[in-house]
Amino acid sequence: MNDLALWTLAEASAAIAARQVSSRELVEACLARIAQWQPRINAFIDLRADAARAAADAADRAIAAGGPCSPLHGIPLAHKDMYYREGRVSTCGSTLRREWHATGTATVLRRLDAAGAIDLGTLNMAEWAGGATGHNIWFGDARNPWNPDRVTGGSSSGSGAAVAARLAFGSLGSDTGGSIRLPASMCGVTGLKPTYGAVSRHGAMPRAWTLDAVGPLARTAQDCALILAAIAGPDPQDASTAEAPGFAMPAVADGRAGRLADTLAGTVIGVEASMLQAADPSLRPALDTALAVLGDLGVELREVAIPELAAIFDLGGVISTTEAASIHLQQMRAQPSGYAPDLFTRMQAGLATPAVLYLHALRMRGLLLEKVRASVFSRCNALFAPTVAVPVPTRAESRTETAEDVGRIHGPLVRLTRPFNFLGLPSLSLPCGPDSAGMPVGFQLVGAPFAEAEILRLGMAYQSITAWHARVPELPA
Amino acid sequence: MNDLALWTLAEASAAIAARQVSSRELVEACLARIAQWQPRINAFIDLRADAARAAADAADRAIAAGGPCSPLHGIPLAHKDMYYREGRVSTCGSTLRREWHATGTATVLRRLDAAGAIDLGTLNMAEWAGGATGHNIWFGDARNPWNPDRVTGGSSSGSGAAVAARLAFGSLGSDTGGSIRLPASMCGVTGLKPTYGAVSRHGAMPRAWTLDAVGPLARTAQDCALILAAIAGPDPQDASTAEAPGFAMPAVADGRAGRLADTLAGTVIGVEASMLQAADPSLRPALDTALAVLGDLGVELREVAIPELAAIFDLGGVISTTEAASIHLQQMRAQPSGYAPDLFTRMQAGLATPAVLYLHALRMRGLLLEKVRASVFSRCNALFAPTVAVPVPTRAESRTETAEDVGRIHGPLVRLTRPFNFLGLPSLSLPCGPDSAGMPVGFQLVGAPFAEAEILRLGMAYQSITAWHARVPELPA
Repeated sequence: MNDLALWTLAEASAAIAARQVSSRELVEACLARIAQWQPRINAFIDLRADAARAAADAADRAIAAGGPCSPLHGIPLAHKDMYYREGRVSTCGSTLRREWHATGTATVLRRLDAAGAIDLGTLNMAEWAGGATGHNIWFGDARNPWNPDRVTGGSSSGSGAAVAARLAFGSLGSDTGGSIRLPASMCGVTGLKPTYGAVSRHGAMPRAWTLDAVGPLARTAQDCALILAAIAGPDPQDASTAEAPGFAMPAVADGRAGRLADTLAGTVIGVEASMLQAADPSLRPALDTALAVLGDLGVELREVAIPELAAIFDLGGVISTTEAASIHLQQMRAQPSGYAPDLFTRMQAGLATPAVLYLHALRMRGLLLEKVRASVFSRCNALFAPTVAVPVPTRAESRTETAEDVGRIHGPLVRLTRPFNFLGLPSLSLPCGPDSAGMPVGFQLVGAPFAEAEILRLGMAYQSITAWHARVPELPA
Repeated sequence: MNDLALWTLAEASAAIAARQVSSRELVEACLARIAQWQPRINAFIDLRADAARAAADAADRAIAAGGPCSPLHGIPLAHKDMYYREGRVSTCGSTLRREWHATGTATVLRRLDAAGAIDLGTLNMAEWAGGATGHNIWFGDARNPWNPDRVTGGSSSGSGAAVAARLAFGSLGSDTGGSIRLPASMCGVTGLKPTYGAVSRHGAMPRAWTLDAVGPLARTAQDCALILAAIAGPDPQDASTAEAPGFAMPAVADGRAGRLADTLAGTVIGVEASMLQAADPSLRPALDTALAVLGDLGVELREVAIPELAAIFDLGGVISTTEAASIHLQQMRAQPSGYAPDLFTRMQAGLATPAVLYLHALRMRGLLLEKVRASVFSRCNALFAPTVAVPVPTRAESRTETAEDVGRIHGPLVRLTRPFNFLGLPSLSLPCGPDSAGMPVGFQLVGAPFAEAEILRLGMAYQSITAWHARVPELPA
């Protein structure tokens, strides 16, 4: 591959460390692809090419001077436009923030900066991280690199599109009901929603503070692990972050199938039967193949059922809509026309939640998580489920205008992802090859609390003998 | 004084340590008064005389054996019937818990046990700690020792009555909107609501978990300090408890006026003008005298105003009613007739709170506390306010039946106390002598967060040159 931008983050990282490639060369490779792809997929909101070039040159000088070289040193990344950087605009996908300058820098950006990563600019997203499709009336829809008539999935729409088109080596998304995993699945990349509390949200736009998780979209599980290792861990500025006992990164293996498969003996993956059955028939061949691959790796597949799944889904919705409405209450009153009408309609629903219902939902989290631990994670290393139950919709068919549209379009998209936000569990979405329309399909490996290392290990093993993560969309001739 | 039960806790403690008196003698003195007073004031729900005698004998043996002797060693106390003790009934003032046995022991009881305190039994309280008067249709009203036709104040009704009548040397109450301070004021004793987070609520009946505070009612500020020292501090079983920097008990001084007054030079007390003006004219002479005494001690009195006091009061009410309704939702549906009708009416109001309003109230706490710190505690060591704005009502006139009654009776009673629950500030209620009807009047000294030592120090200084705390109600001949 002559195009450096087609490398994985791990490959680029190794090449930087070996001084086989410079950060500046990686940045230029990304910028060249951005120039080609941006008009087609609208992934960036604010490209900062000159700043990225300057940062890359500084990173190269640091290496030349023999400075320390973390795995992210000199690696070009780009993030959803909701991570604040002091003095810079963070639009959060909203027209109301076109001129809003952050007064501090998000902990995750500070940690990536400290690791030497390069920030190419900010990426498109659903307005206020409030949509599952990737539509945005203010900055234009992000478009799916595999077919620009289709949505990217949301809300981390630009992250999915940019990583899929190889415009950056990885990206921070955020996930309140599926917003990392949906674009990862629909764009054919790998995305990790960490355990609630594993990654600081300080300086990130809040959507629903008891559900929000910050995590990476990248090309592989290994790449996600490298980014997670840089951003995870307690932060005094986010009281929800925890010093998790046993939280550990998987060894970043060399990816040879034999070695990884050796370690899977005795591994049990629970297959959530109702979620698999919920998948559209057009997705089943890809999902069944993924299960067969896991079986080939020596994993034992066992049918399991998440108890009280309907309640888990519904209570997650109560929390999500209520906290979002709480955050936006004053602004919705003051500037209603600053919201897309369909988003306004959806967010109004949260204004009507009785407090006792909201508090009931919060109180049930621990109880239901205990039930899920007892019935699933007591006997499984991880849980398998499709990421999305429906084929990637077209932008036209998934545009929402009426309240009825909203329920019809957004509910099915988050049906298999939102439960794991309510439960706070880590979930890794991995690509498993095209559906009958040629669009990507993804599946989730869900772990016990703070079992990121386990699901990343399984994802790396899966990707060691599959190549869906290496498929790259092509520009039309 | 031949009646040992008339001593202060500090005096009894010193006598125990000096082996001048035995714990058994103190217990017998309390039991003798209980036999006289209980029919008149209905302070106890469950007197455990034999267990108390046995515990006192054990405490005496421990002293005889030369064991350690904490300030509470062998001291008879009795607590509001909402602190769980494993295997014992805790009624919480509700008929629904007449047969309910606790499965664990409250942290505060464990700590008092460890300090060697004697538990005489459980005290009357408002049903589910949900009333400001002390009425209780299930266990009978606690009655004010100064006049049994008058209420004790609530919800720690039995605590106020028992300490005032010298049936115990001190008592744990709980305070969500004034429930320690109201009975302290109306019964003429000293009561401390600690800072939110200073004392563990583990194993205590919750009323409204973001407001609830556990604290002592006792005869003097010094006695409150001795109890607080035993119960305060972080508890892994109550995540709201904090290791407060600078949280310290005042030196338990010998109470001589000169020495305490020496330390008050430069002390500034802010007088909350609107709260003082809200007090009924019949209370003003006692309050004005208290201010004059503080002036005599060399304290500088300065008029201050709590900013946005109306909002602070209203938002406190939102949180209180909403959290109480959330806790009781299932039980109110299942067993509505197990609640007093007027309590049921009041608690139903909390079912209707919109979640966004509740969350707004929570969010405003920090902002409003900062405003209060800036405008009051940046220039005052403490704040002075009456504890209750109205004279102690009769039991008859303060019985609530209709929703209109509820607003008319309970609102005025908590008007000057609830703001400090919302703000989480420590508040000490001290007696300042009778009103024109001969009933006790109290005032609050409110401190900055975790400034318990400061307000206790001021309270001890005040009590070193006043004797209101030493007045004891008498039985009719």
